[in-house]
Amino acid sequence: MISKKMQSMVENGSVIRAMFEEGKNLARIYGADNVYDYSLGNPCTPPPESVRQEACNILMNEPEMLVHGYMSNSGYEDVRASVAESLNRRFGTDFGAGNLIMTVGAAGGLNVALKTILEPGDEVLVFAPYFVEYNNYISNFLGVPAVVPPGEDLALNVAGAEKVITAKTKAMILNSPNNPTGAVYTEAEIKALADLLETKSAEYGHTIYLLSDEPYREIVFDGAKVPYLTKYYRNTLVGYSYSKSLSLPGERIGYLVIPSEVDDFEMTVQAAAVANRILGFVNAPSLFQRVIGRIPDQTSDLSIYAKNRELLCRELGRMGYRFTAPRGAFYMFPESLEPDDVKFCAKAKEYRLLLVPGSSFRGPGHFRLAFCVSHEMIERSLDSFEKLAAYYR
Amino acid sequence: MISKKMQSMVENGSVIRAMFEEGKNLARIYGADNVYDYSLGNPCTPPPESVRQEACNILMNEPEMLVHGYMSNSGYEDVRASVAESLNRRFGTDFGAGNLIMTVGAAGGLNVALKTILEPGDEVLVFAPYFVEYNNYISNFLGVPAVVPPGEDLALNVAGAEKVITAKTKAMILNSPNNPTGAVYTEAEIKALADLLETKSAEYGHTIYLLSDEPYREIVFDGAKVPYLTKYYRNTLVGYSYSKSLSLPGERIGYLVIPSEVDDFEMTVQAAAVANRILGFVNAPSLFQRVIGRIPDQTSDLSIYAKNRELLCRELGRMGYRFTAPRGAFYMFPESLEPDDVKFCAKAKEYRLLLVPGSSFRGPGHFRLAFCVSHEMIERSLDSFEKLAAYYR
Repeated sequence: MISKKMQSMVENGSVIRAMFEEGKNLARIYGADNVYDYSLGNPCTPPPESVRQEACNILMNEPEMLVHGYMSNSGYEDVRASVAESLNRRFGTDFGAGNLIMTVGAAGGLNVALKTILEPGDEVLVFAPYFVEYNNYISNFLGVPAVVPPGEDLALNVAGAEKVITAKTKAMILNSPNNPTGAVYTEAEIKALADLLETKSAEYGHTIYLLSDEPYREIVFDGAKVPYLTKYYRNTLVGYSYSKSLSLPGERIGYLVIPSEVDDFEMTVQAAAVANRILGFVNAPSLFQRVIGRIPDQTSDLSIYAKNRELLCRELGRMGYRFTAPRGAFYMFPESLEPDDVKFCAKAKEYRLLLVPGSSFRGPGHFRLAFCVSHEMIERSLDSFEKLAAYYR
Repeated sequence: MISKKMQSMVENGSVIRAMFEEGKNLARIYGADNVYDYSLGNPCTPPPESVRQEACNILMNEPEMLVHGYMSNSGYEDVRASVAESLNRRFGTDFGAGNLIMTVGAAGGLNVALKTILEPGDEVLVFAPYFVEYNNYISNFLGVPAVVPPGEDLALNVAGAEKVITAKTKAMILNSPNNPTGAVYTEAEIKALADLLETKSAEYGHTIYLLSDEPYREIVFDGAKVPYLTKYYRNTLVGYSYSKSLSLPGERIGYLVIPSEVDDFEMTVQAAAVANRILGFVNAPSLFQRVIGRIPDQTSDLSIYAKNRELLCRELGRMGYRFTAPRGAFYMFPESLEPDDVKFCAKAKEYRLLLVPGSSFRGPGHFRLAFCVSHEMIERSLDSFEKLAAYYR
């Protein structure tokens, strides 16, 4: 009796749920310590102590009607100003409070952005492999995902995008550092993409928006730089989340950046605030807005991810797994050791390794390894990776 | 360049914004103390001290990865169990954790419910006068609002609903205690409505859902009882928010109840959890879920609303304003003193009274008075109400 679309989503979702249930089963049989779960992108490092301190400070010292009350749908002005200044300091941008809307995480921000810009039937480009939840966000507003095939060695496939882009393209979603590959796109790649967007916007006579999904911005390795996209292409909207940088995924706190240079800026900002309201978010959670306002530059101790990456790259490389070393986020995306990645991940489960098939990210022939796990779990799991490799040799 | 629908929403929204700006203008000219703002439904009583205490306790004593981490999209199981037990204690229901989904306020919950059940073109009945934001929630999912005209003296217009209901009706939204009227529907009214829904579901051969929007459940006067709707009609989904009862509107915390008796229960619960995820809420904010789990029975001190209601009913009644005394929520909905309620509210502004025209709630010929304000403001404003009445005498 419920919506047919939702019914089919539940039915199709059951494959992943089945995997999750099987993982729990394995843990019951072999003990939780003997099952190596690389399937979840859940931060493994605690929030900095300042989160606790500032939250308590605010609860004890700020007026409670301010802390828990309604504010503008865009969020507290002082918080938005604080975040804007932090961005300006760190990335040389020139934002003010009026360029930010505080959102219910990046997922909330992307939905707000898509609600704001999409007409039914509009196409939104995504770069495979990608976080397929984007498909759901896009189809919430009757948009249609258009998939750009993968580039060589995780490079940004600008030439591929040029082939997929059409007069119906209204937006493009970019995710760097990337889930599931760990790629960080270079300035040269971003410039090439910006050129393409400028050319195509002019050719088709309408704005093509670049939606930058940036929950992993602060998680980078070997000094990789993540270009700030609004500096390269003016019709860029940035969706950010503190879920990974401050290890606060449950709190649902993030923001959307709408630069002043965007077409119809005033209208766009107002429309996004209305979208935030009518989608039912209303505003980002108030206490955590205020926490963010006090510590806009901080992150959790993210060094665990670099340490985990080093160990995995060294050991998996030694065992003969083929992959491009991630430059950011906490994922790697090696080739599966047989062409069918679903079969490969099923085989891995026999060695108590929980891996996600690349197909789940439209990247078949690969698997995703989420290394936001304890270093000890990785050490314990190496023998299983070795046996899995040996099986295929 | 943005969505045409959003563009027109911004343009039409500017009437209310203009009113808001004018209010700020008046405050600047006459001083904030001499402008009587009855336009906003924002709680005026602080959260109970236990909110602060429990939030700090949780921050200091519960494991931070639990407090701020991801949990099931439906929310923490222990929190849902705690809320279910509180409902069972207070309303004689029989819910378990599996009947609840923690949501981003009632606005989030209603959007999740509508996403779960609506097909494009489905009609959703609403009872005028009503919170017109429902129209936006409904049209987010391509549903169509069907408006039942007002009943006599704020009574529930069941006969009117019978005339508006069609084979396309998929749901009905009920809001009791009511915004903007303060009505609380009686058990007899609810039974009559449930009968109608049973009859029509059978006649049309499909489920018609009753969506109960209940943010004001705890705010009632003179011992009014608010029937718990799932006990009268099994295909009822309840959307609740702690925004008013705990004065936490900024925190965006509430829940959706899906009773076990609902058609296709398992599918419906799973679909609602998926809807919560893909709409971008992902889950209700985690810290405040845990706060609610510890104090599921508590409310702010709500006595201010009864005190305000008594003063306004006595004094406005004495001045000759005609209204049905509210039985709940913090609104009253008197007749405007001229047929055109928009003109009347403009005239009221000359006396520095900010009132919302009933037309904004599809209830022309009336105005809404939100008495979630300080008692002193009401006392100071009485002279203006008197002069406004005198003008029309």
